[in-house]
Order: sequence, then C-alpha cells, then structure tokens
Amino acid sequence: MSSNGTPGGFALSCAVPLATTDRVLLGHGSGGKMTADLIARYFLPAFRNSYLERLDDQAVFNVTGGRLAFTTDAHVVTPLFFPGGDIGMLAVNGTVNDLAMAGARPLYLSAAFILEEGFSLAQLGRIVESMSLAAKRADVLLVAGDTKVVDRGKADGCFITTSGVGMVAHSREITAAGARPGDLVILSGAIAEHGTTIMAARADLEMESPIESDSAPLHELVLDMLEAGGEIHCLRDPTRGGVATALNEIAGQSSAGIVLEEESIPVKEPVRGICELLGLDPLYVANEGKLLAVVAPEGADKILAAMQRRVEGRDARVIGRVVDDSDHLVVLKTRVRGHRVVDMLQGDQLPRIC
Amino acid sequence: MSSNGTPGGFALSCAVPLATTDRVLLGHGSGGKMTADLIARYFLPAFRNSYLERLDDQAVFNVTGGRLAFTTDAHVVTPLFFPGGDIGMLAVNGTVNDLAMAGARPLYLSAAFILEEGFSLAQLGRIVESMSLAAKRADVLLVAGDTKVVDRGKADGCFITTSGVGMVAHSREITAAGARPGDLVILSGAIAEHGTTIMAARADLEMESPIESDSAPLHELVLDMLEAGGEIHCLRDPTRGGVATALNEIAGQSSAGIVLEEESIPVKEPVRGICELLGLDPLYVANEGKLLAVVAPEGADKILAAMQRRVEGRDARVIGRVVDDSDHLVVLKTRVRGHRVVDMLQGDQLPRIC
Repeated sequence: MSSNGTPGGFALSCAVPLATTDRVLLGHGSGGKMTADLIARYFLPAFRNSYLERLDDQAVFNVTGGRLAFTTDAHVVTPLFFPGGDIGMLAVNGTVNDLAMAGARPLYLSAAFILEEGFSLAQLGRIVESMSLAAKRADVLLVAGDTKVVDRGKADGCFITTSGVGMVAHSREITAAGARPGDLVILSGAIAEHGTTIMAARADLEMESPIESDSAPLHELVLDMLEAGGEIHCLRDPTRGGVATALNEIAGQSSAGIVLEEESIPVKEPVRGICELLGLDPLYVANEGKLLAVVAPEGADKILAAMQRRVEGRDARVIGRVVDDSDHLVVLKTRVRGHRVVDMLQGDQLPRIC
Repeated sequence: MSSNGTPGGFALSCAVPLATTDRVLLGHGSGGKMTADLIARYFLPAFRNSYLERLDDQAVFNVTGGRLAFTTDAHVVTPLFFPGGDIGMLAVNGTVNDLAMAGARPLYLSAAFILEEGFSLAQLGRIVESMSLAAKRADVLLVAGDTKVVDRGKADGCFITTSGVGMVAHSREITAAGARPGDLVILSGAIAEHGTTIMAARADLEMESPIESDSAPLHELVLDMLEAGGEIHCLRDPTRGGVATALNEIAGQSSAGIVLEEESIPVKEPVRGICELLGLDPLYVANEGKLLAVVAPEGADKILAAMQRRVEGRDARVIGRVVDDSDHLVVLKTRVRGHRVVDMLQGDQLPRIC
C-alpha cells in the first residue's frame, strides 16, 4: 500500500494525529497524510501481515511453479449491512469462491475501496473488521489495497473491489465448457437465501422466521470434493442470476442441455414465502454460499458423500442431469410433471445484490 | 468472466440480440442476458484471449516458481477523457507501473467496472478500446473481469478497478524501506504533467501550449535499469500526492532524511505556468509515467545511462540524496539557496486525479 497502491510510510514511522472527523473526507483519498492516517487506523490493524506492513505499491510473495488462479469482483450491494453479513464479508467470500470454483486454494487477496465523501468512518471500521474475520476464516491474507474518495453524491457510501490469487494443486480441467451428456448436476444446499435476504431488507419486510444471507467460503468444500475421487467437470457458484443463469452458462458453453427436477431443488420455507411475496423466482435469485457441480455419474456418490460430511454441503443433492440438446436448453421438470424452459435471467430482476 | 466473474457462456454460443439502447441499463449488471450481451459486444472483442474466452469465474494460468508481484488500484478520475489519455489507459498503466515498481514483468490484469445507469455505451466502448491498446503496448493480457451497474446518481459514470500479477525475475530487495544515507535519488523526467492536465481540463483552461498526461507503462524502463548493474534500493511512481509524498514515504519507511535540489527537478514551462495559475505546487501534483529510484552512489551512472537510452527516461537525472536525519525529513534546497521542509501532502489538493 502506498501513494498509489496506498500510502504510506509516514503512517507507521511518525505519530499521525488522529483525524477529528467521524466521516470520510475528500482528503482521505488524496494519497497524502490523511490517507496514511486512514490506513494506519483502519486497514493495517485489521489486516496486519508482513506483506501489507511494507506499505509498498505491490505485494511480492513466493509461489511454487504450477497453475495459478486469478479473479476479480466489484461489490456494490445495498444495503451495506444485512442479516447474515455485510459488504465486507461478501467481498472476501465472493473472491474466495471464484478461486474455489477452479479448485484452487485461495492465498492472497487485494481490496480497493471507493468511498463517498461523508461516509461514516464507524461503518467503514465495521466493514473492515468483517473483512478481517472473513479472511481469517478462509485462511487468506489481504496483501494489497487502495482507497479512493469521490465527492458527495458521486458514489453510494462504499464500493469494494476484491481480487485474489490461489494455487491450483490438481491437474484437472474444470470449466463451464466441461459438461457432457450423462453427467449429473449437484447442488450443495438450499437456494435463494442471499438475494431474498437483500430484497427483504430493502423492502423492510417484517418476517416471522428471519432469513439470512448464506455468504460463506466454499474452497474447503471443493478441496474435499476433489479429494473424494470421481470426475468434476464444472463448478459454479450461482451468484447474480442464480441457479438458472449459472446452468444456462454451463449448457451454452458445453453445447449441451440440462434437465432439472424441480422437487429436488431445496428452497427453505421462509425463503419461498418471501420470494412469493416479492414475485421472485428462487431459481434466479443470488446465492453466496452454494455451488453447482457437474460430475461424471460414476463416482458421483463419492463426491456427494464428501460434500454431505461438511456443513457447507450438508444438504447437497443431485438436482438434474446433462443431456444431448442442440438448443442447449435448461428444462425444469415441475412438481406437476410439466416441463418449463428455464432461460437466462432477462433484464434487471435484482440489481445491486452483491 | 461469468455470472460472478462475469457471465457468460450464452454470449458466445447463441445469437444474443444486440441491445437497442445506447446507454447502460441496470440490467447490464444483472448477471443475466444483458450482461452477457455487454461482454460479447464490448469486452471480448477488445481483450480477446484464450483465458477470457473461457468465460469462467477466474483465469487459470501457469507460473514458474519464484516471486510473484500482486497489486490493485481503483480509478475514479474525472473527467474520464483528458488530453493524453483516459480512465482506461490510466487503469492499465497504473497497475502495470505498480508491478514495475517491484521490478516485476507484468503478465496478467483483471478489470472490474462499476457503471452508472445511463452511462453512454459509446463512451464505454472508447474506454475499453483504450484499455486494449494500453494492454497491448505493455504486453499484458486482461484475463478476468467483472461488471456491476448502480442506479443513476449512485456513481459517476464509470469507475474501473484494475489488479495485476507479474513475475519478479531478480532476487533483489526493492522496497520503500530500502533507502540508506549516501544513496542518490533519481527522477525519470519532468513532473506534474498528469495532475496539471486533469486540473486544467476541469477548470476548462484555454492554453497557449497544450499539456498532456504523461500516462505510460514503465516496466521496460525498470527492467533496463535492473540490467544495468548498480544497486536499486527503492522504486516509486509518484502518482497521487506527487514527488513530495512519495519521497516522504521513502524517508519515513527508511528512517532517513532526503535532501533535494530544486533546480535539478524538471518542470516544463507550460506545466509550471498552469500550476502557478491554479495555485498548485508541482512537487505535490500526480505523475502517471514517471518514477523515482533511490540507488547506491556506486553504479548510479550506469543506471542513469540505461534510463536515458529509453524515451521514458530520456530526461532522467539525480535530484537529491539520502542523508542521516532522525526526523526523516525531506528538505528542498531552493534556487535562492534557501531550505524548505517538504512535508507529505496535507488535505485534498487534487481529489479524483486518477
């Protein structure tokens, strides 16, 4: 972290007077003393590690030769705090999970903050603390960062872009293009919890049974699945656009069709109730702690058993299979024995869900 | 790129109807069909490579074992287009340069876009094209991306966060903490061009001699400096906060003082004129294509000669030296034989300069 990465040296080596403001000021993004103060007060204490402490423009670390996974995600969720999590936890877990979907072990993260002038420093502190806990839980180090401040009315409180690198220890090819007819589609648990929670929070719904975001790191689950034997062809975390969109991506990329069994797709009762109230189809609602795996039928039971042994995969089950289909459709066999084509998400059902 | 990285398979495998809008809509950030359309129309054609084409949530590539550099920067510059560049070029070069300051060869970049509803798609196209050219010039591949859209009035057109990884082939320790008394401070060329250009554009100044941002990739310059022999202790690109702030960071981190010779610090006449008009001190104004190197005195001439052989370092010169100073001050010996303490940037001289 430095004047560009994020400044700077001064913060550690001199006594920086504590800012007397409880709000983000434009000067906090200047790259000068106030930025150094912000880093010394908020970012370094939360994320302290030997890479970040160098306060250089970049982190330098050793890697063994092999395959590296690299990913990025901007996070613009509103509200910033919601039942079960906040933007900080989401930003860490989202990037961890994008690495996990390659079967990588996540190692290092970066975080770039865009803050609106006037944003509460107390809220920033809570967000950073939450990121720190999520990083510890996922056993990743936040090693590089940046802070920019934009004038009032030119952002919405706090946006966070996280990027990450991880090592891929296995030599398998896991990609959305890897599904083959005959493969089984496994879902790791009940769907639509994150998106429904966000929409309920925005609508300020009173709920009998409170629901929570499912935001969680999934890399340990994936590493166990890889250990189990069997052939994993695709992995996807069905975030924005939900299960329907993720499976359409797999079908399109793999030039195959997918047939789903509606009754095997778990949706918890309170989630289903709120979806009905808000007119949402759970298949299109974002998840932040679930994964879809497309696996060869032989060995699928071993993968499923490995998933069910972990809390993140306790409710894992087969929800469908890959078929030959020149139209690359995703088709849902409904409870009433009908068929419905499940298309990709159209339009903007759920903006700013992550 | 996928529903989370950025979607999706659909964009390549099916005929996506071209959107009939010339503006960014909320649906472009939904993770569904419209996001896929945006990727197929703008991002894939500009950045096409085998990693991005997989449309997975992450890029996976081979690395040799050794030291890897990793960095991130959010870009919020206003205006988005300015003489000599735009936010896209700045985002690529900024991340390339943060890697270069570790002596790394930049390899792979990611880009996360936060777009405001209503932003012009034609402008997005120009920005993406500019990023593509900058990436080609720096010989880096953009391999991962993300797009989010926020509602009108919740961002300012377009923010871009770029992250990057590069390999560090040398085994030297280059860090802001590496300066030692006796070392020389080298500056690669005239200062304050980027920041002055941005401020002049904002003030809508009529200029006799037009000035331009100096945004440029510096990694080839650094690799030549490393080849030259001699000992490089610190490297910094003096972006936000300018030369003054970067040298204060080095002084603070290295627990040393720095003495600068004002008359050796090059400022082009039109830049100096506009700084005077706008009340800016060039020492605090951002550069986007310059570097500071702190080097051991023996061998400094070889490093300087290597710099001067390249266009990015043609005007390189020694501007000062590192001294023993328990206060870690940066002191400027002025033209009139006075001394002035050059502190870190205070407050918010130049918000949203990059």
